Amino acid sequence: MVDHMWLEPRTIRQAVCDDTFFIDVAAVGEDARSLRIRKDIAELLQRPCVLNPAVATVLLAVGDVGLRSDEGFVINVVDGRTEIVGTTTRALVYGFYDWLRRRMLGEPVNHVVSEPSQPIRMIDHWDQTDGSVERGYAGESIFFGRWGSNIHCEIGDFPERDASDVFRGDMRRIEDYARYLASVGINAVCLNNVNVRRFAIRLIVRPWIDRVAQIARIFSEFAIKTYLSVNFAAPKLIGGLDTCDPLDPAVNAWWQATVDAIYDAIPDFGGFVVKADSEGEPGPYAYGRTHADGANMFARALQSHGGIVIWRAFVYDCHQDWRDRKLDRAKAAYDNFHDLDGQFADNAILQIKFGPIDFQPSEPLNPLIGAMKRTNLMIEFQIAAEYLGHQIDVNYMLPQWLAAIRTDTGAGDNGVLDTGQYLQQAAVNPALVGYAAVANVGMDDNWTGHKLAQANLYGYGRMCWDQSLSAQTIAREWVSLTFADADTDAQQTITWILDTSNDTYESYAAPLGGGFMVRREDHYGVGINDFEYDRWGTYHYADRDGVGVDRTVATGTGYIGQYATAIAATLENVDTCPDQMLLFFHHVPYSHVLHDGTSVIQHIYDTHFAGVDMVDEYIRRWATLQDRIDDESFANVAERLQRQRRNAIEWRDQINTYFYRMSGIADSQGRLIYR
Amino acid sequence: MVDHMWLEPRTIRQAVCDDTFFIDVAAVGEDARSLRIRKDIAELLQRPCVLNPAVATVLLAVGDVGLRSDEGFVINVVDGRTEIVGTTTRALVYGFYDWLRRRMLGEPVNHVVSEPSQPIRMIDHWDQTDGSVERGYAGESIFFGRWGSNIHCEIGDFPERDASDVFRGDMRRIEDYARYLASVGINAVCLNNVNVRRFAIRLIVRPWIDRVAQIARIFSEFAIKTYLSVNFAAPKLIGGLDTCDPLDPAVNAWWQATVDAIYDAIPDFGGFVVKADSEGEPGPYAYGRTHADGANMFARALQSHGGIVIWRAFVYDCHQDWRDRKLDRAKAAYDNFHDLDGQFADNAILQIKFGPIDFQPSEPLNPLIGAMKRTNLMIEFQIAAEYLGHQIDVNYMLPQWLAAIRTDTGAGDNGVLDTGQYLQQAAVNPALVGYAAVANVGMDDNWTGHKLAQANLYGYGRMCWDQSLSAQTIAREWVSLTFADADTDAQQTITWILDTSNDTYESYAAPLGGGFMVRREDHYGVGINDFEYDRWGTYHYADRDGVGVDRTVATGTGYIGQYATAIAATLENVDTCPDQMLLFFHHVPYSHVLHDGTSVIQHIYDTHFAGVDMVDEYIRRWATLQDRIDDESFANVAERLQRQRRNAIEWRDQINTYFYRMSGIADSQGRLIYR
Repeated sequence: MVDHMWLEPRTIRQAVCDDTFFIDVAAVGEDARSLRIRKDIAELLQRPCVLNPAVATVLLAVGDVGLRSDEGFVINVVDGRTEIVGTTTRALVYGFYDWLRRRMLGEPVNHVVSEPSQPIRMIDHWDQTDGSVERGYAGESIFFGRWGSNIHCEIGDFPERDASDVFRGDMRRIEDYARYLASVGINAVCLNNVNVRRFAIRLIVRPWIDRVAQIARIFSEFAIKTYLSVNFAAPKLIGGLDTCDPLDPAVNAWWQATVDAIYDAIPDFGGFVVKADSEGEPGPYAYGRTHADGANMFARALQSHGGIVIWRAFVYDCHQDWRDRKLDRAKAAYDNFHDLDGQFADNAILQIKFGPIDFQPSEPLNPLIGAMKRTNLMIEFQIAAEYLGHQIDVNYMLPQWLAAIRTDTGAGDNGVLDTGQYLQQAAVNPALVGYAAVANVGMDDNWTGHKLAQANLYGYGRMCWDQSLSAQTIAREWVSLTFADADTDAQQTITWILDTSNDTYESYAAPLGGGFMVRREDHYGVGINDFEYDRWGTYHYADRDGVGVDRTVATGTGYIGQYATAIAATLENVDTCPDQMLLFFHHVPYSHVLHDGTSVIQHIYDTHFAGVDMVDEYIRRWATLQDRIDDESFANVAERLQRQRRNAIEWRDQINTYFYRMSGIADSQGRLIYR
Repeated sequence: MVDHMWLEPRTIRQAVCDDTFFIDVAAVGEDARSLRIRKDIAELLQRPCVLNPAVATVLLAVGDVGLRSDEGFVINVVDGRTEIVGTTTRALVYGFYDWLRRRMLGEPVNHVVSEPSQPIRMIDHWDQTDGSVERGYAGESIFFGRWGSNIHCEIGDFPERDASDVFRGDMRRIEDYARYLASVGINAVCLNNVNVRRFAIRLIVRPWIDRVAQIARIFSEFAIKTYLSVNFAAPKLIGGLDTCDPLDPAVNAWWQATVDAIYDAIPDFGGFVVKADSEGEPGPYAYGRTHADGANMFARALQSHGGIVIWRAFVYDCHQDWRDRKLDRAKAAYDNFHDLDGQFADNAILQIKFGPIDFQPSEPLNPLIGAMKRTNLMIEFQIAAEYLGHQIDVNYMLPQWLAAIRTDTGAGDNGVLDTGQYLQQAAVNPALVGYAAVANVGMDDNWTGHKLAQANLYGYGRMCWDQSLSAQTIAREWVSLTFADADTDAQQTITWILDTSNDTYESYAAPLGGGFMVRREDHYGVGINDFEYDRWGTYHYADRDGVGVDRTVATGTGYIGQYATAIAATLENVDTCPDQMLLFFHHVPYSHVLHDGTSVIQHIYDTHFAGVDMVDEYIRRWATLQDRIDDESFANVAERLQRQRRNAIEWRDQINTYFYRMSGIADSQGRLIYR
């Protein structure tokens, strides 16, 4: 049976069993959003909308509330009646689900003033038209693929499929999904993979755009705009042109006609996501044009419709020579985009991954964040656990994400300026900044493969809406909503596992910021040297004396010089560089002493033994939950914890053996390290 | 245009331009073989068979020549006429092509007495019914797949194919291939992969066996028997039984009926090849039976038809724990089969890989060879260059194979007994021993991807027929036949490349017998640690102090104890163990001094620099051949040498860097080793 995530109908109905509703949208008129709220009240809440506002316990009304954002809302109790008011029906959608969550959590529902931290709060699907999901760990795409199919296989292993209709057609599933996203504040979704290949190239044209429109209409009811990833080479690949030059008039005309037709089918279409000149994808470089030229071509075509183009800054040389220790992939985003600051159109957004590499268990903030001064920016996260355990190992990511975006960008004139504040400061159009994240859902019954991985989807939305929330608060919320029937102790157990899980995974997968020791086939499990002599620019440089990447200005790759002066000074000095990032920034001897008095090699040993110990503790504590939570969730997590344990043991033993063989230094506690 | 390998029609016709033939098979009657010789004389040689033997320059006759083997022949010049005589038409096939080769080479054709060293001289195809070839590096299967298709992709990536007819149907190609095999003395071919999956399981039953029969009839004309690999679980998978227990009467009855039907379709069917209880394939262990029980079940079914079963000894634990350094995959063949000596049926053959691991660039002789005393044995080689460069890197394998089979097996009562002699001594039926080798051909125009890889197919046949030939002689033969128009200096250049190529490849891919440092995806290119922490039992155990596998009895895995006493004593002692195998048998410090005075680490550096230097020398010398050999072969090898150079450079730099990082010992010659 398909899981209800954090919107369990029984829990909802209990919370609102005495409520009646009145919806007043006279100021703007009935629309898809207001109708959707009526429908959800009737069907999901199973409560009535009454005809007389005077007898309603809850009033939802469009009206001026004096907030900066037209998505914001206020909730107040007036004369014993709860009033949820916002200036748009979109605001009412968010207000309605916010109120519902507060009711389910038993929180006070009065004097609430809420507006989103980020104007754009986006989910990117890397779904492919054959039904597979690149970096998908929860089954097939919910948008594409064969009706009823949910084979679990790697991308590329999918059998050939009939391309006459690539859409799955499971509209009920999409409706549920849209509700989950709206309920945590998401307002944008991109349906298809940024690597736009084969059939996906055609999604932007008739008749396929009409099928996209069916999906977009559902998202629209939930105040979510639909976006598509496009292939930069589409004018050649499907347009019959012989160039894709972004300055060529015929190319621009083709895009304009294509965009016009899209808006004909989807009037509130969001825009395009583009990965260009990256990892083999086509782009403007082929025509001697800049990334700004490329992005602005799309921006021009979208502008009159109110659409935007989101241009990914994930551009680097993926054919690096491992021999050259002066090369540094971490520098790529800054090097490729810093000089283009101010050159992007007003409706173009540059989307930057939050770290300089690629969603590793441990990464510093991308130095391009803070360096751009006159550009609309979005920050990209990955809810899909590509490098964070494949939704097999439990890994609640909010602590890492929140730490990243609360890091000083160095862009403040006086004092600390975090990422959220910085985006506003740097924006050309402050409404066009935000966060995006790669989705982690699929056709698995529990949506995310690992039940606890739902917390990341939930948490991402909450973080986008309210950046002041702590990771612990968000975890507690999700656990209370999801395991509403469980006793407090059981809920605390689950919350504790979530809260500690990101550190636990990091403890075995990325000691001291040294990383990319994963298996190259799938990025899961340990493969210490799998990338060490390869072309991807991801090295640890371990030798018999030491380990880590020297990214200093003085003797290394110079990457640290991309940060603001004060930040760079802290990182450059091995004594002030945070230990957690030590091996990311410095190559140090195994005997180097950390701030806690432990040597690097001993830290490696300690964290790897501790990682397995923590997983064992998870298993022990999870076992206590039997019959205290639903059987399906219990079994799902119990099974995944066993797999995580096997994984953590491999990490422990391989890492410890490798570094023991390298260093020859014994564990000070004499624990078992295989030779 | 499809290449003619070593049977270039123009060269042949020049060599026999004055000959006329008479074929006298009155003693046995005309048959498929004699008719085939007539056909080849008419069509390939384009010379007449005359009606009067007195006017023929060449007489082929069946008659008693007093040889042990009925495949042997004599060639003599009697009254100015060449007479090729053997006791069977099969002998005439071999005699005819032997004579032809001698004529093409300009060798004397008189006083020739020739009989095969090995009774069974077999080629095993790992071809799959979807058209792919497991470990195939020359395009698709010549037997299976779609007509006209020759996509180059890895096994598993093949698109789904219509299974209604899995046969390619290119009978001309098969006819040419059968001639090549016969011309070098092959007498057995197995058509399908030993991993018998999906559709291939059904090849043994109607109607598919009738399609196999069409192929078998062609091979039969060339004196070659056809074999099939079978799935041990066929009675369950396609027979409708609920067991495959080799002692179950219903299972035996099913196999008997199946075999009877096969011989109905293919009267000279050779028999079965079986991979059981190995790498996931089903086998007798599931029923508590031994491998002898399994083999003998097939032997019983085949016996009345004169068929044989070839049972592979490639059985090992492929889920080994890398942590346990006492485990040793090298011991598996001996451990699994030694106790079964004497228990196999008279028409069963145990097929042993020549080395204890798996066709590595450097391996000692498998200790099971020498240990079995009362069993029919075949020795298995691999012409397909799985671990030897994928037919991208030039690698003439005869030096390695001949060195292996000329090694003392330790089974002699007095003095050295090589593998050829030993097989006869151990045999229950001396006619049922021989060699088998995995084919290296595919649908590529030049059959083997790399033109020079043809020499391995040629050489394997020649080695089976005449074990006394040197690798150099065989190389010279092949070059003279293949590049007949080239000048002597050009031929010597090609021969020199062949002669040195096996050492060159080994110099960068397997220093001192240490091996399995290949990429795990495809077994091509360097991946030093790709198998080091995996389950395949293939480790190098490099640490900061030393490298190699301790397989001694005294302190290691005990593997050396599987050899005969005197051999074991030599290997056990690090000072008498041959340096070429040092790291296979011993874990030694990098400072260990080899017999030539070089340290182990310096040897690693030296050979890896030398390997690239050799490839550079190949490139230089090959460049001199332009316009002196055919353009296609020139371009093919030139292109592959460039790829080999890139590969050798990666091996050099990664191996040298890795061991420098490990050991910290600098190259004594100060050459560039990346840090």
